[in-house]
Amino acid sequence: MSLIVQKYGGTSVGTPERIRNVAKRILETQQAGHQVVAVVSAMSGVTNKLIELAAAVTGEEADPTEREMDVLLSTGEQTTIALTAMCLNSMGSKAVSLTGAQAGITTDGVHTKARISTISPEEVHRLLDDGNIVILAGFQGQTPDGKITTLGRGGSDLTAIAMAAAIDADLCQIYTDVDGVYTCDPRVVKDAQKIDEISYDEMLEMASSGTKVMQSRSVEFAKKFGVVFQVRSSLNNNPGTTVREETMSMESVVIRGVSLEREQAKVTITSVGDQPGTAGKIFGAISDANINVDMIVQNVSVSKCDTTDISFTVHKNDIAKAEAALAPVLSEIGDGVKVEARDGIAKLSVVGIGMKSHSGVAAEMFAALSSAGVNIEMISTSEIKITVTVAEDQIEEAANVVHSAFNLAQ
Amino acid sequence: MSLIVQKYGGTSVGTPERIRNVAKRILETQQAGHQVVAVVSAMSGVTNKLIELAAAVTGEEADPTEREMDVLLSTGEQTTIALTAMCLNSMGSKAVSLTGAQAGITTDGVHTKARISTISPEEVHRLLDDGNIVILAGFQGQTPDGKITTLGRGGSDLTAIAMAAAIDADLCQIYTDVDGVYTCDPRVVKDAQKIDEISYDEMLEMASSGTKVMQSRSVEFAKKFGVVFQVRSSLNNNPGTTVREETMSMESVVIRGVSLEREQAKVTITSVGDQPGTAGKIFGAISDANINVDMIVQNVSVSKCDTTDISFTVHKNDIAKAEAALAPVLSEIGDGVKVEARDGIAKLSVVGIGMKSHSGVAAEMFAALSSAGVNIEMISTSEIKITVTVAEDQIEEAANVVHSAFNLAQ
Repeated sequence: MSLIVQKYGGTSVGTPERIRNVAKRILETQQAGHQVVAVVSAMSGVTNKLIELAAAVTGEEADPTEREMDVLLSTGEQTTIALTAMCLNSMGSKAVSLTGAQAGITTDGVHTKARISTISPEEVHRLLDDGNIVILAGFQGQTPDGKITTLGRGGSDLTAIAMAAAIDADLCQIYTDVDGVYTCDPRVVKDAQKIDEISYDEMLEMASSGTKVMQSRSVEFAKKFGVVFQVRSSLNNNPGTTVREETMSMESVVIRGVSLEREQAKVTITSVGDQPGTAGKIFGAISDANINVDMIVQNVSVSKCDTTDISFTVHKNDIAKAEAALAPVLSEIGDGVKVEARDGIAKLSVVGIGMKSHSGVAAEMFAALSSAGVNIEMISTSEIKITVTVAEDQIEEAANVVHSAFNLAQ
Repeated sequence: MSLIVQKYGGTSVGTPERIRNVAKRILETQQAGHQVVAVVSAMSGVTNKLIELAAAVTGEEADPTEREMDVLLSTGEQTTIALTAMCLNSMGSKAVSLTGAQAGITTDGVHTKARISTISPEEVHRLLDDGNIVILAGFQGQTPDGKITTLGRGGSDLTAIAMAAAIDADLCQIYTDVDGVYTCDPRVVKDAQKIDEISYDEMLEMASSGTKVMQSRSVEFAKKFGVVFQVRSSLNNNPGTTVREETMSMESVVIRGVSLEREQAKVTITSVGDQPGTAGKIFGAISDANINVDMIVQNVSVSKCDTTDISFTVHKNDIAKAEAALAPVLSEIGDGVKVEARDGIAKLSVVGIGMKSHSGVAAEMFAALSSAGVNIEMISTSEIKITVTVAEDQIEEAANVVHSAFNLAQ
């Protein structure tokens, strides 16, 4: 008998019929001899309706208070746990719902994006030992003094991973509407393959470079606590992708996958004086404006003029915000400093822990792109990832040629 | 400065616009110098939608489990408290929402119709002392071991009355869609008057004889704990009806009001053997079938045949159920016993604590009915109420003539 945590997202529980299907799957898991904790999200659409109601009562004069948004939004998951548990009951199964608070999930007090501080799993264990299936509300918890909190984006995945760690589950299954993680987006690369096993670090790098199966936050949590999890489809019985600590066999694969991200823009600050503190000022201003920066590239000037260019990428919708944020600091960082921003670019990354022990990966990637006539604009690397930017209208061709160069279709 | 508990029903908070109006009224109460706890119900329609969802996931094979129905239905009130509190926040006011559990409302474990066992008002006091308006979810509580419960019909009124008792509020205001309690239904008696003050006992007798402004349960609770409350409209600023312990001045009014209940049926069991235990068997069978019985009339026979007739009233929709329930006991209670059931009757009651010290009330009522040609079929009396049944097509005429006879329009 194994102890299994399953997580079903909003689409999987989006209608009464789908809730019945999810209940059947949960029941089959129990009938196969396992103990099951199932984490469920709000039915798809419900959260948006609640947000609309909040906007309607608060009007345009103010954002809804975050404390009350949490009280409001947490009703979405609470509705789903009750429906799922009573559905299982109607099938003759012992099942009990728990809110985040009832399940002992304690968080800090940062409403709408709280962090889990502790989980007291006694009640979950007691219910499981008593033969129950436990249906647990994702995305929510409570502060030590009893305030309702929500965990922010990707919160239900986090609930599943964290509860799996707290109850020492044998396996955590994240059910979603895709079959798992692919070597590349199958809409772009037709012969992309589902990946059977991937390491936490690779999963993190894939997520950070555009493959949004899960939020990085949940993967980081799983890595920290050694929670093995599967990403798999709730629409079929395919085994999905298992995410775990890297193994020797994983390292024999040099490149695990190729990921891409469109709608990027490159912002370049030219003629920056080469003094300590300059980068801090630039990215402090960007960060204060809540803009997500991704690649940052700087080359210290080797010419006589003692200035350099700093470039970074942002989402193209953030260009105006970035320019506005930078305007006040330009004069501080040197005379003649200018900002140039341009969209129409995309990022392409190859990811694999195997590249740590293989040289020549970058060269092979660049050669493949070159042979296809794709110009590389920026390059950035980590231990297990190489990212380049290319013209957005060449990204699909670039992805295919790189995917082929590393034989990922096999 | 007074401490005021207000309660707003589902219609009063049925749309975002109405929630804004309720918030304004709450805010005005605070700005008049009072501390306010506002109990709110689920937005009208929401509870029915949740019940439909429950039916959809459980199918026809089983009723939804009551534990999970409570988890489900309690989301309705939780949604309203968050919306109301954030609405007040957007108006610049300090307001905080509390679920039943957060407000310290502890109940027994009888799901879907739990009874309040204790209220720990520390958190409510702390928030009030800190300058907050407290928005409290009606209809819900939790068991000592943390299960979510709901209080059943009239539960939000009960929450308001019970919290008013627990925090020793100066006043409890039950906002509804009528102006208060009337001397008779204004749709039937055109010159019916709003009653300014009524005693708990009169309110209870009015409720039990068809004037359904509030469930008897909440009035009983208020009487037990001496909670003075007003029933008033959320659509205007009329003072409403105050319900409290009887006073000397109340007794000077002989009759407080006239109430009526239609769609009744009379069930008569004829030729019942006059032996101990007979009535117990009859009403045991009726009670086991969950049928509400109201008036019961029996006259012990004075003739030689040693049998009697027992009559009682039920709602006309319960006739078939009552006959089915009685069938098995008929042979036990005597030979030739028969059941006769007939609908088309209505009940008319006069209520007033003043009748305790005034004789002749019954005679005056019967004379009035007689003068209008209304035949009386059954009579039943309590200390402060006289109820008769009449033909349903004469009930409006009967109500008007009795209302006039006691000068209730003045």
